[in-house]
Amino acid sequence: MLRSHTCGELNLTHNGQIVTLSGWVQRSRDLGGMTFVDLRDRYGITQLVFNMETNAPLCEEARKLGREYVISATGTVTERSNKNLKMPTGEIEIFVEKLEILNVSKIPPFTIEDNTDGGDELRMKYRYLDLRRNTVRDNLMLRHHMGIETRNYMNEIGFIEVETPVLIKSTPEGARDFVVPSRMNEGQFYALPQSPQTFKQLLMVAGLDKYFQIVKCFRDEDLRADRQPEFTQIDCEMSFVTQDDILNTFEGLTRHLFKTVKSVDINKLPRMTFADAMKNYGNDKPDIRFEMTFVELTDLVKGHDFKVFEDAELVAGINANGCAGYTRKQLDALTDFVKRPQVGAGGLIYVRFNEDGSLKSSVDKFYTEDDLKKWAAAFNAKPGDLMLILAGVAGKTRKALSELRLEMGNQLGLRNSEVFAPLWVVDFPLLEWDEDTQRYYAMHHPFTSPKPEDIPMLDTDPGKVRANAYDLVINGVEIGGGSIRIHNRDLQKRMFTILGFTDEDAQAQFGFLMNAFEFGAPPHGGIAFGFDRMCSLFGGSDSIRDYIAFPKNNSGRDVMIDSPSPIKQEQLDELKLKLNLTEK
Amino acid sequence: MLRSHTCGELNLTHNGQIVTLSGWVQRSRDLGGMTFVDLRDRYGITQLVFNMETNAPLCEEARKLGREYVISATGTVTERSNKNLKMPTGEIEIFVEKLEILNVSKIPPFTIEDNTDGGDELRMKYRYLDLRRNTVRDNLMLRHHMGIETRNYMNEIGFIEVETPVLIKSTPEGARDFVVPSRMNEGQFYALPQSPQTFKQLLMVAGLDKYFQIVKCFRDEDLRADRQPEFTQIDCEMSFVTQDDILNTFEGLTRHLFKTVKSVDINKLPRMTFADAMKNYGNDKPDIRFEMTFVELTDLVKGHDFKVFEDAELVAGINANGCAGYTRKQLDALTDFVKRPQVGAGGLIYVRFNEDGSLKSSVDKFYTEDDLKKWAAAFNAKPGDLMLILAGVAGKTRKALSELRLEMGNQLGLRNSEVFAPLWVVDFPLLEWDEDTQRYYAMHHPFTSPKPEDIPMLDTDPGKVRANAYDLVINGVEIGGGSIRIHNRDLQKRMFTILGFTDEDAQAQFGFLMNAFEFGAPPHGGIAFGFDRMCSLFGGSDSIRDYIAFPKNNSGRDVMIDSPSPIKQEQLDELKLKLNLTEK
Repeated sequence: MLRSHTCGELNLTHNGQIVTLSGWVQRSRDLGGMTFVDLRDRYGITQLVFNMETNAPLCEEARKLGREYVISATGTVTERSNKNLKMPTGEIEIFVEKLEILNVSKIPPFTIEDNTDGGDELRMKYRYLDLRRNTVRDNLMLRHHMGIETRNYMNEIGFIEVETPVLIKSTPEGARDFVVPSRMNEGQFYALPQSPQTFKQLLMVAGLDKYFQIVKCFRDEDLRADRQPEFTQIDCEMSFVTQDDILNTFEGLTRHLFKTVKSVDINKLPRMTFADAMKNYGNDKPDIRFEMTFVELTDLVKGHDFKVFEDAELVAGINANGCAGYTRKQLDALTDFVKRPQVGAGGLIYVRFNEDGSLKSSVDKFYTEDDLKKWAAAFNAKPGDLMLILAGVAGKTRKALSELRLEMGNQLGLRNSEVFAPLWVVDFPLLEWDEDTQRYYAMHHPFTSPKPEDIPMLDTDPGKVRANAYDLVINGVEIGGGSIRIHNRDLQKRMFTILGFTDEDAQAQFGFLMNAFEFGAPPHGGIAFGFDRMCSLFGGSDSIRDYIAFPKNNSGRDVMIDSPSPIKQEQLDELKLKLNLTEK
Repeated sequence: MLRSHTCGELNLTHNGQIVTLSGWVQRSRDLGGMTFVDLRDRYGITQLVFNMETNAPLCEEARKLGREYVISATGTVTERSNKNLKMPTGEIEIFVEKLEILNVSKIPPFTIEDNTDGGDELRMKYRYLDLRRNTVRDNLMLRHHMGIETRNYMNEIGFIEVETPVLIKSTPEGARDFVVPSRMNEGQFYALPQSPQTFKQLLMVAGLDKYFQIVKCFRDEDLRADRQPEFTQIDCEMSFVTQDDILNTFEGLTRHLFKTVKSVDINKLPRMTFADAMKNYGNDKPDIRFEMTFVELTDLVKGHDFKVFEDAELVAGINANGCAGYTRKQLDALTDFVKRPQVGAGGLIYVRFNEDGSLKSSVDKFYTEDDLKKWAAAFNAKPGDLMLILAGVAGKTRKALSELRLEMGNQLGLRNSEVFAPLWVVDFPLLEWDEDTQRYYAMHHPFTSPKPEDIPMLDTDPGKVRANAYDLVINGVEIGGGSIRIHNRDLQKRMFTILGFTDEDAQAQFGFLMNAFEFGAPPHGGIAFGFDRMCSLFGGSDSIRDYIAFPKNNSGRDVMIDSPSPIKQEQLDELKLKLNLTEK
């Protein structure tokens, strides 16, 4: 090794030892006859000292070192007179006797500091420099740690990691596939997997019993800030299980990760039905770090000639504790917030529960203080609280009120990223009706089993059928989702029919799975976790990009390697392809 | 769970307990008033018993169970009168009181037994049934175990697993890339990585210091039996290292895997130069489970008017201990073997060292017994041995003699797949001359560093320059290979020039790496192991397919899911592509 120690490990116990360190020049300062160089590697920073009096040529050399030069320095560990107890190596420095420049560096385009002066785009282009920053490297370390702990936990409870193929088959259902032309099979294409769903089900048919995999998946979708064309899942499947077995198993994994990675103890996870989540939080991924659940006032407020309420399918609100003192300006801002197109409410009604016990609302024209008292009772409000009420069509109102609730959570500091409140949301609907295409879509995916007791409704009222499907939600983020699968060929066929597949389409796309179901498929179910999002949640960040070594931008480009890019004509010819570009 | 225990864990300590098992019907037999069903799951087989006398309806039901039906059975653990001590559960059976058929099965197209009657193609089409066989499942378990042990070892010595991207950029150097059309970037393509080579080097520039990844790689090459279009590597890179540091580190991993997975202790690995390997074994991946090294006789045999030897650049042979008794027929078969086009020798000369001390050769016309005695001395032969000699152009002769050596190793039973003889082959040439294209190619890859002392020869005699490159070879198979990389921009540029890149091409393809080298690239090096091959070697098999859950056939097809396949016109349109098929 071109070093005897790292830049993070030396302290007073090494006093007097001769050591060799290698790393990058973080900064250097000349103070009188001395030159101090902070040498950085993955493990820390150690101070090197050069002395003009004792070794002028070496000190001269050190003075020429630029930022980010790669050097190797040999010298004696010495106790510092000026100790820096904030850093592990801050009690010592190295009196350098030998210096070797391993590589020079141009001046980096941004500072390699925790708080850098580099903008997003620049840092992405020079990602290899961005990754030198402690914060970014720590994210990758956290991700590595999460992976190791996941694998060891799954291994210990008897799961086998099996690699499923990346070159598979295109299935138009669901999101868009990336496709890969096959040279050896002219005019034919592989597809990259959106998930290993069918393969893990085949592994259950194969009797593997307990499967998992940390695996790359691909989706050719228009990207939002928190989406990437390639992303990573913790993908799992088990046989001979009920929904309870899956929830218990992966509750175990979740708690293990919080314990080992974050040193946080998590209690037994609450389970909430989809229906309750929608009714009480207006959201199938409720953030339960704070209460502020919905209170429905629809019946209470009718009959007072207030048209907004009279016309409303739903009148519902939340109680913001201690916010009675909100100013006119703050209330106007909240009104603007709910009227934003992304939130979509028509307006906001408020009731202050003043400290003196009086009640004051924005609809005093229509309601007496006695009326408002009844509302306050419904909200279980107390002096000092502020009730915020929306009205309108039920679905839209719940969605808007959910946004308002989250906003109030932010304003009241109730959404601390170091507090973790996971829960299971269960009993999702099996199907979603799509107005545009006038057909049902699978809410989870076409392999999800309906609840046995709801199967009769498949013919009469398919939209009401509940699925054996569940999501793991943490802090308002969907971290994982899964279901008990259909393992019966006839029921699977019926599902495909309900989803508008012809028999031919179903056979062409999923024939291999339905054939497999004829040879003794066991009852099975599983779950998949979004690993990138899980890492960012554990790291306290909103952005999955911060937890991916080489992410792509919103156009799906890697600006560092400048990809995608044109390929040579010979490559196209070999693949029997022609470009068919839009004329400009 | 639809079971209280697995089919592999019950024994006499459970006697009298009521248990529920779930699994597949392996076989059933009716014996008088009893029906016995072998129930199988991933963990083993347990015998179920049904009794006509005590419960006729249940026994009737059991008699209708077909092979591979999925059932759940509840009953009492009972000591067997007829114990089978060959299986862990052989001392007990379950007297069934309740039976549930979880799924039926058609008769499988081949038997689910260790020795199946199914042919390769049929087993690939029904891979989910093939995977039910113990042997195939054990292969996947071994692979899982290898992965877990690799990750934990690498983690413990401070390596970080980092996921590098799968959607990267096409680089014409090397094997053919699979490409992925980008919908969002019209007319442009991603490529799938043949290895994460450039990314792991960028991670070193980023200061990650110790990186590894178990990662899928892709190569669009015409497939041989032991190649797959997608394959898995253990990919590693370290900074501030010399070649010795890499060899020591991964020798540690190799020994750890043998110890934990195979319970085999491996001594310190021998290191052999490429030159010695070629001279003594005619092969850069020598199988050193047995000696039988080459003996060169070129000078010794000249001047006897035997034209074959007179014209030969090299005369060399091996000594097959104890084979003097080979019959004429056996020797003819060996002659036929070396004359096969794949081996390519013109003929085979032999010398028997008879038990009585006399020597008898196929060239007695030209050489006296005294001459042969000198040869025998060179071979260090003793009575009972058989010397086998080839002659001709040096390179071709060594290659043919290597094949003959391996064949003799097979015939003498010296290549036991449960004996493991790993070694490092080092000091590979940097470049290979290609006659067809009249240019040099990188023997390892363009990022490999020349030995510093050989750099002056880059201009004068590039073919002689040795690289800091090394292979891990086990039992004649290349399991891993790597090198110390170039970390200097100018030297990297010079390499690209030697390899025939124009500056523009080098910049277009590898500009991002050369730019990165300007910002303080540390000295670094690494290695990549072929994980599929490593697993098959550990499992004692020649075929990597046996160790891949869903392999592709020689045309790159997955016959189970019938992929690749045509895609819809709308998909092509969205990707701005047209098929340009060969006219038939």
